[in-house]
Amino acid sequence: MLMSVILGLPKGSLQDATFNMMRKAGFNVQAGSRSYVPSVDDPALQCRLIRPQEISRYVELGLLDAGITGYDWIYENNSDVVEISEMCYSKATSRPVRWVLAVPNDSAIQSVKDLQGKRIATEAVGLTRRYLAQHGVEAEVEFSWGATEVKAPELVDAIVELTETGSSLRANNLRIMDVVLESTTRLIANKKAWQDAAKRAKVEQIALLLAGALAAETRVLLKMNVPAASLQAVVAKLPALHTPTVMPLNDAGWHAIESVVEERVVREIVPLLRKAGAEGIIELPLNKVVL
Amino acid sequence: MLMSVILGLPKGSLQDATFNMMRKAGFNVQAGSRSYVPSVDDPALQCRLIRPQEISRYVELGLLDAGITGYDWIYENNSDVVEISEMCYSKATSRPVRWVLAVPNDSAIQSVKDLQGKRIATEAVGLTRRYLAQHGVEAEVEFSWGATEVKAPELVDAIVELTETGSSLRANNLRIMDVVLESTTRLIANKKAWQDAAKRAKVEQIALLLAGALAAETRVLLKMNVPAASLQAVVAKLPALHTPTVMPLNDAGWHAIESVVEERVVREIVPLLRKAGAEGIIELPLNKVVL
Amino acid sequence: MLMSVILGLPKGSLQDATFNMMRKAGFNVQAGSRSYVPSVDDPALQCRLIRPQEISRYVELGLLDAGITGYDWIYENNSDVVEISEMCYSKATSRPVRWVLAVPNDSAIQSVKDLQGKRIATEAVGLTRRYLAQHGVEAEVEFSWGATEVKAPELVDAIVELTETGSSLRANNLRIMDVVLESTTRLIANKKAWQDAAKRAKVEQIALLLAGALAAETRVLLKMNVPAASLQAVVAKLPALHTPTVMPLNDAGWHAIESVVEERVVREIVPLLRKAGAEGIIELPLNKVVL
Amino acid sequence: MLMSVILGLPKGSLQDATFNMMRKAGFNVQAGSRSYVPSVDDPALQCRLIRPQEISRYVELGLLDAGITGYDWIYENNSDVVEISEMCYSKATSRPVRWVLAVPNDSAIQSVKDLQGKRIATEAVGLTRRYLAQHGVEAEVEFSWGATEVKAPELVDAIVELTETGSSLRANNLRIMDVVLESTTRLIANKKAWQDAAKRAKVEQIALLLAGALAAETRVLLKMNVPAASLQAVVAKLPALHTPTVMPLNDAGWHAIESVVEERVVREIVPLLRKAGAEGIIELPLNKVVL
Amino acid sequence: MLMSVILGLPKGSLQDATFNMMRKAGFNVQAGSRSYVPSVDDPALQCRLIRPQEISRYVELGLLDAGITGYDWIYENNSDVVEISEMCYSKATSRPVRWVLAVPNDSAIQSVKDLQGKRIATEAVGLTRRYLAQHGVEAEVEFSWGATEVKAPELVDAIVELTETGSSLRANNLRIMDVVLESTTRLIANKKAWQDAAKRAKVEQIALLLAGALAAETRVLLKMNVPAASLQAVVAKLPALHTPTVMPLNDAGWHAIESVVEERVVREIVPLLRKAGAEGIIELPLNKVVL
Amino acid sequence: MLMSVILGLPKGSLQDATFNMMRKAGFNVQAGSRSYVPSVDDPALQCRLIRPQEISRYVELGLLDAGITGYDWIYENNSDVVEISEMCYSKATSRPVRWVLAVPNDSAIQSVKDLQGKRIATEAVGLTRRYLAQHGVEAEVEFSWGATEVKAPELVDAIVELTETGSSLRANNLRIMDVVLESTTRLIANKKAWQDAAKRAKVEQIALLLAGALAAETRVLLKMNVPAASLQAVVAKLPALHTPTVMPLNDAGWHAIESVVEERVVREIVPLLRKAGAEGIIELPLNKVVL
Repeated sequence: MLMSVILGLPKGSLQDATFNMMRKAGFNVQAGSRSYVPSVDDPALQCRLIRPQEISRYVELGLLDAGITGYDWIYENNSDVVEISEMCYSKATSRPVRWVLAVPNDSAIQSVKDLQGKRIATEAVGLTRRYLAQHGVEAEVEFSWGATEVKAPELVDAIVELTETGSSLRANNLRIMDVVLESTTRLIANKKAWQDAAKRAKVEQIALLLAGALAAETRVLLKMNVPAASLQAVVAKLPALHTPTVMPLNDAGWHAIESVVEERVVREIVPLLRKAGAEGIIELPLNKVVL
Repeated sequence: MLMSVILGLPKGSLQDATFNMMRKAGFNVQAGSRSYVPSVDDPALQCRLIRPQEISRYVELGLLDAGITGYDWIYENNSDVVEISEMCYSKATSRPVRWVLAVPNDSAIQSVKDLQGKRIATEAVGLTRRYLAQHGVEAEVEFSWGATEVKAPELVDAIVELTETGSSLRANNLRIMDVVLESTTRLIANKKAWQDAAKRAKVEQIALLLAGALAAETRVLLKMNVPAASLQAVVAKLPALHTPTVMPLNDAGWHAIESVVEERVVREIVPLLRKAGAEGIIELPLNKVVL
Repeated sequence: MLMSVILGLPKGSLQDATFNMMRKAGFNVQAGSRSYVPSVDDPALQCRLIRPQEISRYVELGLLDAGITGYDWIYENNSDVVEISEMCYSKATSRPVRWVLAVPNDSAIQSVKDLQGKRIATEAVGLTRRYLAQHGVEAEVEFSWGATEVKAPELVDAIVELTETGSSLRANNLRIMDVVLESTTRLIANKKAWQDAAKRAKVEQIALLLAGALAAETRVLLKMNVPAASLQAVVAKLPALHTPTVMPLNDAGWHAIESVVEERVVREIVPLLRKAGAEGIIELPLNKVVL
Repeated sequence: MLMSVILGLPKGSLQDATFNMMRKAGFNVQAGSRSYVPSVDDPALQCRLIRPQEISRYVELGLLDAGITGYDWIYENNSDVVEISEMCYSKATSRPVRWVLAVPNDSAIQSVKDLQGKRIATEAVGLTRRYLAQHGVEAEVEFSWGATEVKAPELVDAIVELTETGSSLRANNLRIMDVVLESTTRLIANKKAWQDAAKRAKVEQIALLLAGALAAETRVLLKMNVPAASLQAVVAKLPALHTPTVMPLNDAGWHAIESVVEERVVREIVPLLRKAGAEGIIELPLNKVVL
Repeated sequence: MLMSVILGLPKGSLQDATFNMMRKAGFNVQAGSRSYVPSVDDPALQCRLIRPQEISRYVELGLLDAGITGYDWIYENNSDVVEISEMCYSKATSRPVRWVLAVPNDSAIQSVKDLQGKRIATEAVGLTRRYLAQHGVEAEVEFSWGATEVKAPELVDAIVELTETGSSLRANNLRIMDVVLESTTRLIANKKAWQDAAKRAKVEQIALLLAGALAAETRVLLKMNVPAASLQAVVAKLPALHTPTVMPLNDAGWHAIESVVEERVVREIVPLLRKAGAEGIIELPLNKVVL
Repeated sequence: MLMSVILGLPKGSLQDATFNMMRKAGFNVQAGSRSYVPSVDDPALQCRLIRPQEISRYVELGLLDAGITGYDWIYENNSDVVEISEMCYSKATSRPVRWVLAVPNDSAIQSVKDLQGKRIATEAVGLTRRYLAQHGVEAEVEFSWGATEVKAPELVDAIVELTETGSSLRANNLRIMDVVLESTTRLIANKKAWQDAAKRAKVEQIALLLAGALAAETRVLLKMNVPAASLQAVVAKLPALHTPTVMPLNDAGWHAIESVVEERVVREIVPLLRKAGAEGIIELPLNKVVL
C-alpha cells in the first residue's frame, strides 16, 4: 500500500490563507463536505482540518505526521516536534502576530511587577503563566472564552491577547505594556515521521514548494532592454539579492535583462532604471520563485 | 444616585434569541458599537454581553448582579448563585439542549465503563470529569477548542458534546451512548444582590415580563360567537388550562367567548368548535400572556 | 399503524408561499436536508416536495394522496383527480396567473387563425395543442426549456407563456393576443384516497385551515366604542359580509362593536365610522378567520 | 375623468420608512421598475419618488399636489406650502433629527461669534446662512457634496450637519456647539390644491390614516379580567390618556377591561395591575389607532 | 454590409464558464440588459444566449451559424451539425460529464435488462429511449422537470441523470448501474454556414483562440538558468511534450531555459530540476498557449 | 522632518478603480477605519478621500498638494491647477464619460436654442450655465440632488447629465441633443506644490507608475519561436508600436521573439503569426509597461 503523509491544516482564521498557499504551492486542497478531511489531489498526502491550538499536540502524539500552525500554540502546548520551516503569512499582514500584555489606559499598573495578586484573562493560559513565572509574579490567570479585550477593567485587571495591528486594543481603551511572544506560522513534523525517508521527502517537497509560492507572493519579474553602454549602470540599480539574467539580442549591442525583484522596490527603481538607460521595462507576475 | 442592576446577557449563539426575548418583554436592548455594553432603554438596568460559559462565574463573584445563561455552564462552573427562573428557548427549538456522550458508530465502546483509560474530547471538561467520577471511570479528558464531533475516532475515543437535534452527530457517524446533562436557559442572580430589595424587585420584574413574553410565543387568542344552547358544548372543547372569558352580546341569547390557547392545538379544535356550534371563529396573535 | 396522508407540495416559485400558508394554517412544514421530504409536525401527514408540473400526475397515479398545485398543470396533464378547493395566492399577487399567446409587437399575426403553419414555443405543449385544435389551427408546437419570451421573433413566430403582470412580455416587445388559460392554486386529492374516511377527514381539515389562514391574509379586526344613539348609523357603514359583534359596556348607553373586514376597505370606512359617531377605533391583525 | 392627487414621497434614507407607513395606513405603494413613479393601489392617488431636498420646491410650484418631506428642507428652500401634519418617524429613531453646528473637539471656536471670517461646510447652505445672519456673523459657507463630518479641521473650520444620535460626530472628534434646527417629517400640500375640495379630502384621508398607523406603532392593546371589587383599583393603574373599555362578563361580578396603552409603559404597569387584582392579562399588537 | 456570424452560447450552468473562456480567448462577451443578446466587441460576431438543450436544434435549422453546447444535447436532439472542436471545461471540473442510469441502493434491479416494464424518469427522454432500445428493453420513460434524483424509488424505479462527481446520487442513496453517455462541451456549426468561407474563417478563429485559452488554463511557463554541464540533465527532466526554448546568456557557459509545462507536474519536477543543476527557477502564469 | 505629499483620491464611484490603479502602480492604499484618511505604505505620501466634485477646489486652495479627479469637476469648479496627466479609466469602461444635454424623446425641443426660458436640472450647474451662455441661451438651471434622468418632462424641460453608455437615458425615454463636455480622469497638482522639487518628484513618480500600470491593463506579452527564414515575415505581422525583442536560441537558425501588444489585437494576429511561421506562441499577463 502507498505511503501517505497526514498533514494538519489550521481550521479558522488561518484556513483560507493556508489553503490558498497550498494551492499556489501546487496542492489543490478543497474543504469537502466533511470539513475535517479536505480533499487533496495527491495520493501521497492526506489533510486534516484542526484548530491551530491543537495541531502541535496531535503532531507530537503522532496522530498527524506534520502540520501547519502558529508558533504561539506550539509554545503554549510545549510540544516536542520538529520545526521544518517558518512562513510569514497570516490573515491580514505578512508580519508576525504578537501576544501582548495589555491594561486599561488609565490603569495604575505600569509594569509586569504590578500584576502581583491581580486577575488576568487570556486564551493562552500556559504561555501567560510561564511569562509571569519568568518575572517572578504570582497572579490569577483565568481562561477567556473570547472577547477578551472587553474584559478589562470591569472583569479583570489585565489581559494577554493576540494582536496584529493593535486596533482592537485601542478601540477598547487598552494600552500594551509588554510583548509576551511573537509568533509566525510554522511547518512542523512528528519526530518519528521525520526519520522515515519517504515521509521526510514528502514534507520537504511541501516545504520547498510552499517557500517558492510564498517568495512569489512579494516578488515580480522585471524585464528590460539595455544598450551595451548602459549595461553596467542598469545592473547596478537592480537589488543585489539575485543576480540578474543578461541575454544578447539579435540587435547587436543590445541586451535583455531579467531580474526577480521584491514588488515593493519596483516603484523606487523603475525611475532609476530608465534614467540609467533601460528601455521597454515591463513587470510580470510570478507564481513561484525557487532560487 | 440611581440603583441600577447589572445583567449579563449571553454573547454568541443565544444572543439574538435573548435580545429578541428581552425586547418582547419590553426592554429594548441594542448591541452598540462597543459590543460589551449593549444599550437598554431602562435607567435602572445595565447590560453586559459575555460568553455564556463565563456568566455564572461573574455573577457569583458579584461583578454582575444577574445573568441569563445556560444551566450547563452554571453546572460546569459549579457556581453558587440564585436561580430565579427557567426559560425554554434557544437558537433552534424550544426543547432543552443535551450534553451527550458519543462514540463512533462502529466503536467497541458500549457503555461508560468501557471508557476506562480512553481519551475523551469536550468543551465541558468539568462536567465530563464529574460524570466519569460518578461512574467510577478514569479516563483522559482533553479540552476541545471546537469541531469536537469530527475528532472521534481518529484523534480521541469518545466525545462529550452539546446537541439539539443530533444531526451533526449523525453526519459524523457517531452514536449517542448516554445523556450527560440536560440544560435550559436560566435567569440567575448574585446571592447578595438578591437580598437587596430594589435589585430584587428589578430582577423579579424582568422575570415576570420574560415569562409573559415567552408564554405568548406559543399561544394565540381565539374568539368566537356562540348561541346560548351551544355554550356548554363549545366551552367543553376549549383546553381546560385557562378559563375562557364569556361575555353577553346585544343580540339576546348569544355570547362572545375569548380564550388563550396553545397555537399548536388550534388546528385540532377549530373543526370541533365549529361542529359544537361556534361561529365567526377568529385567531389573533399575542405579545404577552401574564396569567 | 397510524394512517398518514401523503401531500405533494410545489417545489420552486410557489414553494415559499405554500410553506408559509401551511404554517399559518397550523402545519409547521420545514424543508429538511433531503429536500424531497420536508418535515411536518403532524404524524398523520407526510409531505413531498415535487415540481408543480408533476404533482397532479402522481396524485392521479395514487403515489400521492393529495397535492397543492396550479390548475394549469392539472389541465396540461389532463389529470383525473378530485379538486377540493381553490386558493388565490401566488408568488407576487393574489390574482390568477394567465397563460397567454403572445407575438412580437410588429408581427403580422393578428389572430390565432394567422398561426396556421407557424412555429410556437411553450413550456405547456399539451395546453397549447388543445387550444390550437379548438381554433382549428395546425402549427408546430415546440417545447421550450425556458426564457421563452426572448425567442420571438428570431427563433419562433409566437409563444404561449405564463404571466402575472405582463411586464416581462412588454420588456421583450411582445403583445398579448389571447388568454389561453387562467389558473389558480388548487388543493386536489386522489379519487381513491378521497373515499377513505380517515384520509378525507385529514384533507378536509387542511382545506378548512388553509381557507381560514388565507381569509386572514386580507382581513383585519376593527373594534370601536359607540353610544346607543349612533349604533345603527355605525353598523350601517360596516360591510354587510359578516354581522358585527355588539356588546354592552359597563358605561350605560355605550356599546363595543367588533367586525372582521377586508383590510382594503379600512381606509375608506374609518373616516365614515368616525363621522357616524364611533370612538376609539382600533385595527388588529388576524391569524385565522373561520366563519 | 377621475380626480387624482399627486403625492411626492422622499427617495433615499426616508424611503423605506415612508413606504412602510403608507402601507400601514392602507395605501400599498411599491417602487416599480421606473422608480420615479411607484405604483399605488388607489386610482385617486399618484405617487412620485423625489429627493426630500426637492419635494417642497415642486409642491410650491404645483408640480406636486402634496408631499412627505422633512421640515429642514421646507425651511432650507423657504417654500410657501400648507403644512397638514407632523409625523415623528425616521430611519433610526422616532425623535426629531437635528442640524447642528459642530467644530473639532480641540478647536478654539467656542461660540457662533467665533465663526466670523471662517469657512463652514454644509449640505444646507441656505439654512446655515440664515442662522449666521441671525447671529450677525459673516463667514464663508461652502456646499458639501457629502462626508461633511470628516472635513473639519483640515478642510474647513466648522460644519453644519444632520445628526440623529451624534455618534458619527463623536467618531470624527467633533463637538456640537449649537443646534441650528430641529426637524420632523411633514405632510405638506400645495396652496391651490388645498382649496380644491376633492384633493383636500384625499389629503386629509391620508393624514388621518397615517396618524392612525403611526399611533399604533408605539401602542398595544391590554386586556384583562377583573372582579368587581378590584375594578376601581385596576382602572386607576391604567394611564389616563384613553378611557378603558369595561364590559360585564357572564360570570357575575367579573368584568373585562380593554385599554390602548403606550407599549413602553407595559413593563411598568403589568406588575401593578396584577397586584391590584387583574387576572389573565394579555397584550395584543395593533395596526391602527384612531381615537 | 458586414458578414456576421451568429453564435449560440449556453444559458444557465455553463454560462459563466463559457463567457469566461470567450473573454480569455479575446472576445469580450457581456450579458446585457436583454439577456438573449449579449454584447460582444467584434462587429463580425453576434451572440445569442440560449438553453444548451436547444442550441443544436437552432444551429441545425440555420437560425444560428454556430454554437457552444454539450455533446449530450446534440445527441439527444439527433442534430445534423458540424462538430468543430471539443472543449473540456464545465461548471465544476475539467472532466467529461456523464449521463448515468441509477437505481436505489437496495433496489432489486441489477442490470438494464431488469428495467423491462418499469418506469424511468429523466430530462433526456430521447437519449434514454435510444439506450433502452439498444438493450432491447421496453420501459416507460417519463420526462422529469427537475430534482430527478429524489424520485426513485418512491415515484419511479430508475432514473437517467447527469452527474459530475456522483455526490448528489450518493446523497440520495442511489447507485450507478451504467453510464449511458459521456459528454463534453463542443463548438458546432451549421452545415451551410460552414461552406461559407468568411463564416468558416471566423468560426475557425474562435476555435483556435478558445483552444489557446483552454490550453493556458492548465499550463504555466517555467524559466530557469543552467550551466552548460547540466543542460542535458535538466532538459531530460522537462516533459517531452513541448521542446524547451534554450538561450545563451551573456555569462559564458550559462543558458536560460523556458518551457511550457502542465501546472500539475510542477510540484514533481521542481525538486528534480534543482537536483539536476537548475538555478533561479521561476513559474509564470499564461493567458494563451498556441503551439 | 520628512516631506510628504498630500494626495486627494475620489470617494465614491471612482474610488475602487482608483485604489486598484494605485495598488497596481505600487502604492498600497487601504481605506481605514476613518475613511477620510486611507493608509498608504509610503511615508512620503498621505492620502485623503474626498468627493471628486470637491478635489480640484482643495488642490487650488493648497489644502491638498495633488489629486486624482475628473476633468468635468475641474472645469465645473473653474479651478486653477496644474494638470499632470490624463488617465482613461472609470467605473465601467475605459472611454471618456460625457455630460450630455437630453430631452424627452417626444419633446418639441430640437436644439439648444429651443431651451430659451425653459427649466433645466443638473448636478453641474456651472458647466451648464457656461454652455448655455456660449450658445446665447437664457434658461433656469436648477441644482438636482440626484435621479436627474427621471425629472424630464414632468418636473423640468431638459437635463444635463453624466452618461457612460446612455442606457439610463434610453430607459427613461430621453434623447441626447448635444454633448456638453467629455471628461477623463486627471492627476492634478497645486501650482505652488509643483514648484517644490521634492513634491514634484513624488508627483512625477506617481504619474509614471500610474501610466505604467494603466498601460499594462490593456497589454500583454507575446512570445514565440521563429526560424530564421520566417523572422522578417513574423515581425511584419507584429504591431509597429513597440519594436519586438529578438534573441538567438541555442538551436542554430531559431530565434525567440517577445513583443508587448495591445490585448485586443491578439485575436487578430495570432492566426497570422502562425501562418507566417511562428511556433509555440504564448501570451503572458503584464503588471506594468514603462516604455
